Amino acid sequence: MRIARVRFDGRTATAIISGRSAQLVRGGPFGRLQRIGELVPLSKLQFLPPVRPTKIVAIGINYYSHAGERTPPAQPEPFLKAPSSLIGHGQTILLPRDAGRVDEEAEVVAVIGRRASRIAEADVDRYVFGYTCGNDVSAREWQRDDLQWWRAKSSDTFTAVGPWIETTLTPEHIGVEGRVNGVVIQHADTSQMVHSIRKCIARITSVMTLERGDLVFTGTPGTTAALHPGDVVEVEVVGVGVLRNPVALAP
Amino acid sequence: MRIARVRFDGRTATAIISGRSAQLVRGGPFGRLQRIGELVPLSKLQFLPPVRPTKIVAIGINYYSHAGERTPPAQPEPFLKAPSSLIGHGQTILLPRDAGRVDEEAEVVAVIGRRASRIAEADVDRYVFGYTCGNDVSAREWQRDDLQWWRAKSSDTFTAVGPWIETTLTPEHIGVEGRVNGVVIQHADTSQMVHSIRKCIARITSVMTLERGDLVFTGTPGTTAALHPGDVVEVEVVGVGVLRNPVALAP
Repeated sequence: MRIARVRFDGRTATAIISGRSAQLVRGGPFGRLQRIGELVPLSKLQFLPPVRPTKIVAIGINYYSHAGERTPPAQPEPFLKAPSSLIGHGQTILLPRDAGRVDEEAEVVAVIGRRASRIAEADVDRYVFGYTCGNDVSAREWQRDDLQWWRAKSSDTFTAVGPWIETTLTPEHIGVEGRVNGVVIQHADTSQMVHSIRKCIARITSVMTLERGDLVFTGTPGTTAALHPGDVVEVEVVGVGVLRNPVALAP
Repeated sequence: MRIARVRFDGRTATAIISGRSAQLVRGGPFGRLQRIGELVPLSKLQFLPPVRPTKIVAIGINYYSHAGERTPPAQPEPFLKAPSSLIGHGQTILLPRDAGRVDEEAEVVAVIGRRASRIAEADVDRYVFGYTCGNDVSAREWQRDDLQWWRAKSSDTFTAVGPWIETTLTPEHIGVEGRVNGVVIQHADTSQMVHSIRKCIARITSVMTLERGDLVFTGTPGTTAALHPGDVVEVEVVGVGVLRNPVALAP
């Protein structure tokens, strides 16, 4: 099932996506879903981030192709992103005027379905509600020069997710692609990760409780591209869909 | 006014603190407060973190006395802490078994009262609801060895705040003290900061929107102390009160 959070006709609703239409539902995305109203064409919806997480955890250097000449880390290396940086499908990524180079990072994102503390790798799937597409937008100079990655990774609009959550995937072999203006920049599969999605999530919960709705960005492959005003950046996760965001200079 | 969030008689409520008593109120802490019920002695209350933030931002190396031989940073150096690490006054700080050295860090904490984006330093006070005491518990080996400070600063129970918010302070000259088992470890005043509280908050909002209830830890002074099971650690912010937490080994 594909579940989105949308704006339609002046209000916010959960929507079950089916082909080019959406069925609006009451409640959700985690509880019982009660269908309301007519089928609505996707073109009439504005997409919001599909959940409102209490936190966003991301994994650094988690594909061999992204590590380059660095030694891949012996354990997953998580970091935090601020929920205030979230935008949905179709919303604009804003480049801060003093940031210098800002890159896209295409990622598979896990949506946590229930509270998870100290769980085993073998149990992770029972705590994952589904997967979505994510763009971990990153200001490279700030990432290099600041003490920690606060603004490099969490400036407003730097965390794009969506357009919806797909609840039927398993994590071991998911394709992911990053494109800028239609040109393929990144192309990989989660089987090429340094540390598997299940291992990363179990590792996080060894010290930090994950809550329902929390997001785990699972790392970006290959070499990323700089974003410029006027670009359109896409993250496709095979089996989920395409997250598309225009890029502009911040006011 | 002093405002807490408490458990009493099996339910959660906002409480206005006055001397050794609390008046329970409906709503709050930010909205209109409607008094309910009798005065309750503080000894009968369990204190929760006074707000439920969407994010916690902390400032690194922000007292000259803590910078030591390092060059104090030219700009405030924020980092993120996870809301899942929050505990209130009286709750137990749990030392992870594999963390090595874990230190207390006594801090003045600002509670944001309304959404703040790109605000000027001179306007900061209008966005701050009040101040509370904070302990930015820090695992030093993880802080030194990990790519980012995710578990060093955000392991469960690593962010103690409370016992309440004091809404009448101004930030330029607030005393703060850290004590372990009654021994004074840290003692300073916010006038000794590298970057003022107003400057730090304005700086954060230059790239990252702060939401109502968000917390800003404003840095720790001097030299911190290692925590051990059985310790009792206190953070006193003059004009607010004393945040007290016992320490135990994580199960």
